[in-house]
Amino acid sequence: MKRLILLGFAFYIQTSIFAQTAQQDSLVLKSISNYILSNYTCYSDLHYLCKQIGHRISGSKQAEMAVEWAKKTLEKTGCDRVYLQEVMVPHWVRGKEKGEIRLPNKKNIPITISSLGNAVGTPEQGLAANILQINHIDELKKLSKKDVEGKIVFYNFRFDQTNIHTFESYGPCVYYRWGAPSEAAKLGAIGVVIRSVSSAYDDKPHTGSLTYNKDYPAIPAVAISNLDADLLEKTIAQEKNVQFFILSTCKMMEDVKSYNVIAELKGSEHEDEYIDFGGHLDSWDIGEGAHDDGAGVVQAIEVIRVFKSLGIRPKRTLRAVLFMNEENGLKGAKAYAEIAKANNEKHILAIESDAGGATPHGFSMTMSNEQRAKISAWSFLLRPYGLYTFEKEGGGADVSQLNKQMDTPVMELMPDSQRYFDMHHSANDIFENVHRRELCLGAIAIAQMVYLVDMYGL
Amino acid sequence: MKRLILLGFAFYIQTSIFAQTAQQDSLVLKSISNYILSNYTCYSDLHYLCKQIGHRISGSKQAEMAVEWAKKTLEKTGCDRVYLQEVMVPHWVRGKEKGEIRLPNKKNIPITISSLGNAVGTPEQGLAANILQINHIDELKKLSKKDVEGKIVFYNFRFDQTNIHTFESYGPCVYYRWGAPSEAAKLGAIGVVIRSVSSAYDDKPHTGSLTYNKDYPAIPAVAISNLDADLLEKTIAQEKNVQFFILSTCKMMEDVKSYNVIAELKGSEHEDEYIDFGGHLDSWDIGEGAHDDGAGVVQAIEVIRVFKSLGIRPKRTLRAVLFMNEENGLKGAKAYAEIAKANNEKHILAIESDAGGATPHGFSMTMSNEQRAKISAWSFLLRPYGLYTFEKEGGGADVSQLNKQMDTPVMELMPDSQRYFDMHHSANDIFENVHRRELCLGAIAIAQMVYLVDMYGL
Repeated sequence: MKRLILLGFAFYIQTSIFAQTAQQDSLVLKSISNYILSNYTCYSDLHYLCKQIGHRISGSKQAEMAVEWAKKTLEKTGCDRVYLQEVMVPHWVRGKEKGEIRLPNKKNIPITISSLGNAVGTPEQGLAANILQINHIDELKKLSKKDVEGKIVFYNFRFDQTNIHTFESYGPCVYYRWGAPSEAAKLGAIGVVIRSVSSAYDDKPHTGSLTYNKDYPAIPAVAISNLDADLLEKTIAQEKNVQFFILSTCKMMEDVKSYNVIAELKGSEHEDEYIDFGGHLDSWDIGEGAHDDGAGVVQAIEVIRVFKSLGIRPKRTLRAVLFMNEENGLKGAKAYAEIAKANNEKHILAIESDAGGATPHGFSMTMSNEQRAKISAWSFLLRPYGLYTFEKEGGGADVSQLNKQMDTPVMELMPDSQRYFDMHHSANDIFENVHRRELCLGAIAIAQMVYLVDMYGL
Repeated sequence: MKRLILLGFAFYIQTSIFAQTAQQDSLVLKSISNYILSNYTCYSDLHYLCKQIGHRISGSKQAEMAVEWAKKTLEKTGCDRVYLQEVMVPHWVRGKEKGEIRLPNKKNIPITISSLGNAVGTPEQGLAANILQINHIDELKKLSKKDVEGKIVFYNFRFDQTNIHTFESYGPCVYYRWGAPSEAAKLGAIGVVIRSVSSAYDDKPHTGSLTYNKDYPAIPAVAISNLDADLLEKTIAQEKNVQFFILSTCKMMEDVKSYNVIAELKGSEHEDEYIDFGGHLDSWDIGEGAHDDGAGVVQAIEVIRVFKSLGIRPKRTLRAVLFMNEENGLKGAKAYAEIAKANNEKHILAIESDAGGATPHGFSMTMSNEQRAKISAWSFLLRPYGLYTFEKEGGGADVSQLNKQMDTPVMELMPDSQRYFDMHHSANDIFENVHRRELCLGAIAIAQMVYLVDMYGL
């Protein structure tokens, strides 16, 4: 009986301390939230990045401006250290673009095209060929060289609208942009047109990286909008000998020197332990890279700002990392992880925000079950901020390099995904399509997670 | 031992049946989701309602058109019965409107005003008076008649941006629109200007109902945008003898005959048990009533459509109820509940969607703890659709009449609230600001909840 009473007392003490700590933590989390929602400086930052600098593909003048702006903006937060990390990046440039459906004895139908990133261009005068519609890669694989040779392949694979989480539809589609062009080249195709990887029924094509298989010729590859893909599909169904014309003078230039931008708040107890959080500074060369990934960039800056402004001195060293070249090479992320590894740095967690600036619902994670359980135990503190999901596997392309090279636990913010692929990599990805409060909620979620991991380790 | 084995066997049977049933249910829920996300007919319906009919305040020609359109649209679903339920509604009309800040010996500054619904107008030539800024009602309550008499009171209470769930900010603000004008009249004010109940920093005023306390004079009352309220506040701080000018020829007309629109799918086992779901057909007379409450209307129609299209025969009678006059009288909801009560109908649940067409996160509920527990037990089936919150108290103005008069359990869909009060009751509440997939997810959530309650009762 005595033992039971003692146990009960210990439990009482423990829960009281726990309750007290939880209350203190919840007050800090609320102060972080209040600060960001009252000032929304990240929203003003995004406005500057989108409207004064604009889109900023790796190697471009705008990417260079973004580096300078990010460095200055981070310095203004008063954090302990801001520095640049040099990295050589590819420099792909879009040129003139023109697309047409061509029918024998009829007027050509103009189609807006967007060359895929890293793609080669056409001859100056463009190229025209019969078009071969492929709805699924399995259809192509049943064909032989004589069926495909000299043609332009039209990959007509559709974004699955029935998934609730739209990233599940992105995965299967993106293959047609990333890998399928070379499969067409393997069978002798001379060009590729893809239905945009997009959830929107509009007239905007969505670009994005492709990678050529070096065993086959590099052929021009372009995206067309969902509406134009519908038109092309209908035309092919109704007419014979439909040709497609592509003119694109895009090309890959020499590599360019660029930078990751890194800011630190030094840890008061474990200066040599790092918690990373960030997004990528580069964007595609259409739209303004507002959701992808201006949002992630300004949220990372906001995390530094809120810790500094509220005087929350971290125990561990916090690092905002704004990566260069996520879109078409990952060179910044690879360099960052290599240097961290070479320096034998201890990174206890790396958080990425690269899924847009919408209302956050939680985090996806790649880490041990014990670490996952530890984070889930904090969910009651995060739930009042709309964060309820901590189950999915995930990370994000940039921080995944730390996971790959150093086994660092990684997380990615999970914003509402309903609108993301309407805008992603297209002219729709502009400042006006980011909502002030939603963007702030993302910054709050990351700052709160950083605070808890800093307090209690992982 | 034998008993244990038997118990274990019983448990096995039970859990197997449970697992099997859950699997069957989850398949039905998925088929509901797939149907709605593949067809998104509710989105086309909303387009028609917003663009062909437009805003539709009670008593207006457009409200009449909305009734006819809703009846026809429901009939086309092939449901068992569609009928109109007569109700007399108020008919308030906006007239000419003009607002100005007036300074001695300076040019007048034009200010966009929006008369509050149900308000009286000014004289034809308008009225001008010195303005008295009140930031909180407590400030007014400390004043006496001589401080207020003959003045226009400017209620400058701000929408609290620090709440995560924006409806928590709406509550305290809405008093200044709904009740505070008469408090000013009590002290002799001759007009009221309110800072819009709005989360947006833009130039759009937000209207909404007021109610006059009959003990005091009914005085004109108008809303101005957040940007204009900032300007007025600044002007008052910098200048002396600031006057405000209001011209508004709005007025209340004679009551008009109108209708609730009701559609039924008859129950196969308990025809006399009703599950209600709906929104309101009327809207404010600016914008298009897209989120408020076109979304709720087309979602209710979609629920009928999906049951009918998939051949899901309900056990109980399902009723889509499109209420008239939620915005400035609740006459439709009151009549509906009165008739249900007079007929001694058994309503086992009423669900409202009147918080906008954004991504749904769950439901708020007013019901017994047992009923709440029953619904929470289904949450694992609803979680894959992003529905995670079932804790809040709530209902919605229309279905709350059933709760009040007949103690019916009620629920309200809880969509993401971040953008709602940017648009609510303003020119921003238009079709373009509703997202196709988000609207569909709301319809899916309601249909799924109706399905489960129909299957298992409440």
